[in-house]
Amino acid sequence: MVICAVIGATGYAGAELARLLLGHPGVDRLILSSASSGGEAMSSVYPNLAGAFGKDPMRAILVDKSAAIAEAQVVFAALPAGHAEEIAALCSEKGSLFIDMSADFRFGADEATYSAWYGKKYARPELHAASVYGLPEFNRKKLSSLGPDAKGPRIIGNPGCYPTAATLGLFPAMKLGLAELEGIVIDAKSGTTGAGKEPTKATHYSECADSINPYKIGEHRHGPEISAVLSSMAGAPVGALFAPHLAPMGRGIVATIYVRLAKATDEAALREAYASFYASEPFVRVLGAGAYATNRNVRFSNFCDISVHVPAKGRTAVVVAAIDNMMKGSSGEAVQCMNIALGLDERAGISMLPPAV
Amino acid sequence: MVICAVIGATGYAGAELARLLLGHPGVDRLILSSASSGGEAMSSVYPNLAGAFGKDPMRAILVDKSAAIAEAQVVFAALPAGHAEEIAALCSEKGSLFIDMSADFRFGADEATYSAWYGKKYARPELHAASVYGLPEFNRKKLSSLGPDAKGPRIIGNPGCYPTAATLGLFPAMKLGLAELEGIVIDAKSGTTGAGKEPTKATHYSECADSINPYKIGEHRHGPEISAVLSSMAGAPVGALFAPHLAPMGRGIVATIYVRLAKATDEAALREAYASFYASEPFVRVLGAGAYATNRNVRFSNFCDISVHVPAKGRTAVVVAAIDNMMKGSSGEAVQCMNIALGLDERAGISMLPPAV
Amino acid sequence: MVICAVIGATGYAGAELARLLLGHPGVDRLILSSASSGGEAMSSVYPNLAGAFGKDPMRAILVDKSAAIAEAQVVFAALPAGHAEEIAALCSEKGSLFIDMSADFRFGADEATYSAWYGKKYARPELHAASVYGLPEFNRKKLSSLGPDAKGPRIIGNPGCYPTAATLGLFPAMKLGLAELEGIVIDAKSGTTGAGKEPTKATHYSECADSINPYKIGEHRHGPEISAVLSSMAGAPVGALFAPHLAPMGRGIVATIYVRLAKATDEAALREAYASFYASEPFVRVLGAGAYATNRNVRFSNFCDISVHVPAKGRTAVVVAAIDNMMKGSSGEAVQCMNIALGLDERAGISMLPPAV
Amino acid sequence: MVICAVIGATGYAGAELARLLLGHPGVDRLILSSASSGGEAMSSVYPNLAGAFGKDPMRAILVDKSAAIAEAQVVFAALPAGHAEEIAALCSEKGSLFIDMSADFRFGADEATYSAWYGKKYARPELHAASVYGLPEFNRKKLSSLGPDAKGPRIIGNPGCYPTAATLGLFPAMKLGLAELEGIVIDAKSGTTGAGKEPTKATHYSECADSINPYKIGEHRHGPEISAVLSSMAGAPVGALFAPHLAPMGRGIVATIYVRLAKATDEAALREAYASFYASEPFVRVLGAGAYATNRNVRFSNFCDISVHVPAKGRTAVVVAAIDNMMKGSSGEAVQCMNIALGLDERAGISMLPPAV
Repeated sequence: MVICAVIGATGYAGAELARLLLGHPGVDRLILSSASSGGEAMSSVYPNLAGAFGKDPMRAILVDKSAAIAEAQVVFAALPAGHAEEIAALCSEKGSLFIDMSADFRFGADEATYSAWYGKKYARPELHAASVYGLPEFNRKKLSSLGPDAKGPRIIGNPGCYPTAATLGLFPAMKLGLAELEGIVIDAKSGTTGAGKEPTKATHYSECADSINPYKIGEHRHGPEISAVLSSMAGAPVGALFAPHLAPMGRGIVATIYVRLAKATDEAALREAYASFYASEPFVRVLGAGAYATNRNVRFSNFCDISVHVPAKGRTAVVVAAIDNMMKGSSGEAVQCMNIALGLDERAGISMLPPAV
Repeated sequence: MVICAVIGATGYAGAELARLLLGHPGVDRLILSSASSGGEAMSSVYPNLAGAFGKDPMRAILVDKSAAIAEAQVVFAALPAGHAEEIAALCSEKGSLFIDMSADFRFGADEATYSAWYGKKYARPELHAASVYGLPEFNRKKLSSLGPDAKGPRIIGNPGCYPTAATLGLFPAMKLGLAELEGIVIDAKSGTTGAGKEPTKATHYSECADSINPYKIGEHRHGPEISAVLSSMAGAPVGALFAPHLAPMGRGIVATIYVRLAKATDEAALREAYASFYASEPFVRVLGAGAYATNRNVRFSNFCDISVHVPAKGRTAVVVAAIDNMMKGSSGEAVQCMNIALGLDERAGISMLPPAV
Repeated sequence: MVICAVIGATGYAGAELARLLLGHPGVDRLILSSASSGGEAMSSVYPNLAGAFGKDPMRAILVDKSAAIAEAQVVFAALPAGHAEEIAALCSEKGSLFIDMSADFRFGADEATYSAWYGKKYARPELHAASVYGLPEFNRKKLSSLGPDAKGPRIIGNPGCYPTAATLGLFPAMKLGLAELEGIVIDAKSGTTGAGKEPTKATHYSECADSINPYKIGEHRHGPEISAVLSSMAGAPVGALFAPHLAPMGRGIVATIYVRLAKATDEAALREAYASFYASEPFVRVLGAGAYATNRNVRFSNFCDISVHVPAKGRTAVVVAAIDNMMKGSSGEAVQCMNIALGLDERAGISMLPPAV
Repeated sequence: MVICAVIGATGYAGAELARLLLGHPGVDRLILSSASSGGEAMSSVYPNLAGAFGKDPMRAILVDKSAAIAEAQVVFAALPAGHAEEIAALCSEKGSLFIDMSADFRFGADEATYSAWYGKKYARPELHAASVYGLPEFNRKKLSSLGPDAKGPRIIGNPGCYPTAATLGLFPAMKLGLAELEGIVIDAKSGTTGAGKEPTKATHYSECADSINPYKIGEHRHGPEISAVLSSMAGAPVGALFAPHLAPMGRGIVATIYVRLAKATDEAALREAYASFYASEPFVRVLGAGAYATNRNVRFSNFCDISVHVPAKGRTAVVVAAIDNMMKGSSGEAVQCMNIALGLDERAGISMLPPAV
């Protein structure tokens, strides 16, 4: 049983982490922290959580960051980019596990790419070099080495929502050499929760409802993250064009991925390769012939559904990967990482089935 | 052919006025004004209107208020409450027609109610006393006296969106003495466009989609406006409880109104009374037996659909009134008022039929 | 640990029951039955449940009704009205607990009302007389008498979705004599999942999106159910007008209830009366001053949120009750009833917290 | 002034044609026909059109096909594939203009492709050979030769909704030789109205809301239509992969098109080439730098918005084309074709500006 803290608990990712950890059988106590709402009760900011904290006032009141870090064995930070390094350093000193939801620890030793896209520098490059990119299907072994007995920093950079969908959709193709590494197109559609809690024109109901809005095509920060992870998977540089679209829905990402096959492969064989590759994964479901992945079937769950298509027996394969961006694309994945690092059942706290409707 | 100006053209009501007046056969020229975006092209703020202004740069560039007032024969103001009096005074001096979309001229001589709810005082009470509440079905005669030859101020206070639906739904009952004047309940559901252009938590897609949100029950500013108009209609004080709800849709208001019948009346007779009452109205449609009014059937049009129900042959009647809040509930109604005041075809520029889907 | 069966597992209520029971810690085995899809795998009908059944083929394949009844200790029927009596009889012979999701066992001994609205007669009136209406907050004691050792039939008629929201919103007022029993208005807004799985014009996306649709005002079958339950609560006949509306959202019911206070009561006192009344209920949350109940805050949970308002210090109170119609309004409530009847933790399997977004 | 008829007036495309033609200044009289609802009033099937037909009962009642064809000078058919040839033959004998909304006349002399995808044969191949594909920007000259004095059949095959967006998005690139002709990917997102009036599981609100659903990737009937038109535009065979997605919105198509540039071209130059190409088109708007095309800005209008992007100064261009599928993608385009054929103002009846919200 562990004590967990969420720093930045009043953003959407933080609130979702709170919801999940409150229902996690291995969490003894949950400390929530917020700079903007310190001293308030979490349930006054998030009335959906009213009553969830029982009689324990410690669980209900938003404390400050240092108090949270001092007590917790596992610290999650759900803050904008640029705030994680300092927390990571404190956790490392203390020996606690740190899971960062921002981009700060997603680029490992590659400071150049991080700086180019996020405009910040590394103050403690050794922490980045030691950190693990928290995509369980790709890095389960490294994640499992971050237990309480680990030597050195225990830092996980939780993946971006789009990168989770895109790289899970391509992992078998990259790893097994099934696809060409250039000319990949990732056309992704996301719900509005991915844009966070701050009201903006782009997410104003009157303007985004009933509308599909492409944005930042080739210019989104998740593009270089995707390319970096795919290159790691393939062991060679991968060129992918990332085109995000805002869709009128709350949760969900559907990534439709177009990739040239390395050699002629029929659809059934490609699907079988994917299914075998992911056969033992608890949260990846490769769909059967005729089915298409959709966020509808994974909402409010930690599943990633993948469907594989090779139209007209051609050389272009289409892979559709669907996740709930708040779960597998964010907070659910972070809990999965914690479970692996702590040696818990990987599905603890995130085993909920998606509702049909 | 007239020259029109819209002051506050970059809010939703202003932009909708621009759209309507650009397509109005009696409008010779349209001047758009904005304090926040002065000097910009309207189509850079509202790309939906790209190309609508042809080659005339005067039509495309947002000018300042004084330039607009100086040239226009009809001035619409789509500003927050508190700014209309000054414009009304300038228009009155010039003899031009002024149509205000805010609440400033909705209360006539009743400064007390206006002050109580809007926190402002009248500087020029005589302008208010001379103004006409722009509900055409109720005040057509007064509106038609505001033509170019009118003596005195030519000022129209355009009704609120909720009051338009609620008072049209009750006008026959009030006027014909069919209902009791106490205990009326108006349960209204509105789309998000009624809340305007400013992004807020309440209209953030992630929070208002998939959700019905009651708000300000008995405390909404449109409550006293509704009661005042109903009292005018009935010729006696009317007590109505107004309960608004935000619904996950863009446009539309559906007001479900519960009222005690003054005497036992069967549904068919009540419906017939309504149908006769509104028989010559171009924009009010009283539905037949078995049909329910819904905003679906009036979207993007100036119609108000009304259905009348007397469940279980009882003493409580239910009237449903549905409008498009941006059209009949705001900009469409303002154009209707202008048409009447100028002696144009009442349907000019606002005769579009609602789409089925 | 019990063996449960769901008959009619491929409708929405049945599929939601399956989802809940698959995650229920006290359910040893789940048998799913479907007449229309017998022999198929549940996950081929509901791909959201893919992988949920592990390696046990018995859990995955939809069997016929008799096999399900033969094995199960608890039988849920999620069928249209008219099929429950026969199943109830079989369960009674066998001594198993039967929970019916249809209206068949909601009217107890009152065959007349049931027949008037559902067009069917009782073949086994003694089963109806013995059945319990499954509103836990109202009938917890009776429900808890339906354990394995109970003498006589163990039959629960699970409430309708609208009646759950409406009667929970009025229970304290009725029980404590706070309200007049005549002239109650219940204006309810429901999402589309309440209309079930069958595609219809009313629930066709192109027609119901972006639209509020009142229907069957004063003529809905849930009206007499509501009146009957309220009358039981009050111990005297209650007259309520029930006006349902279809809203463009998936899950959720928001019932806005207008009721005359029996005597002048201020808002704080009324709220306190409600809060005290429900203080020990695990699934009812009475909101504080200034907050409004909304389905947003209870989605995908078994909570019923209630807010209490007395506008303008008047004699009309407004109570807003919000539920997730698939959970507290249907399958979640059925599991709650089972938990009570079997002496389990009342929250087992239905303790999930609602997500913020 | 002409007499128009719509056969199949009670489907969505037919009802939209009725709405447009009722507001068309050059239409003297409109005859509506329906096999399924013959003898009923149009406004009883489509209550949004109540009151639109004035006092003329002939306009309100749905007549049979032969009566419509006998009187009309312009006949629109909005029927499923397979019914147009017979009507085309009757119109040709009579010399009237025939505009078909189905796929029957979209393939010209290419019976093989039509048969392969629609499973029907040509009975009158000479009618197909004489027909014109109704994409005004591509075939304006041919369309304008179909006036009343034309010799031979006057038949227009109105394009599919997806093909309109996809081919307008690629026309400049194909015509000017800017792009490679192989490896084109068209990732298209459509609202539900494109799926028509018949309620289905795919368009059931409870299942398609809050969800993006890819379908028929590489297998949709609009794929071969797109390839055929692109090949005509390019004057050489074009290979395009068409991947449609159902999005939770009523109207609109957004096609995101990925194409290899024939030679290195910077974004500004490509945009300028597009802008020049379409400079005199009344309904195509090429957006400026930084803007993305979205259906939001063209809803309820006949515009096609196009934005052009060349990410990272690379060799892959992304073109986004957005239309309202009911207008430019269907009924609006058909009216545009009629206007051209009859020598009317091309914008008559379809000049409405899109609303901002």
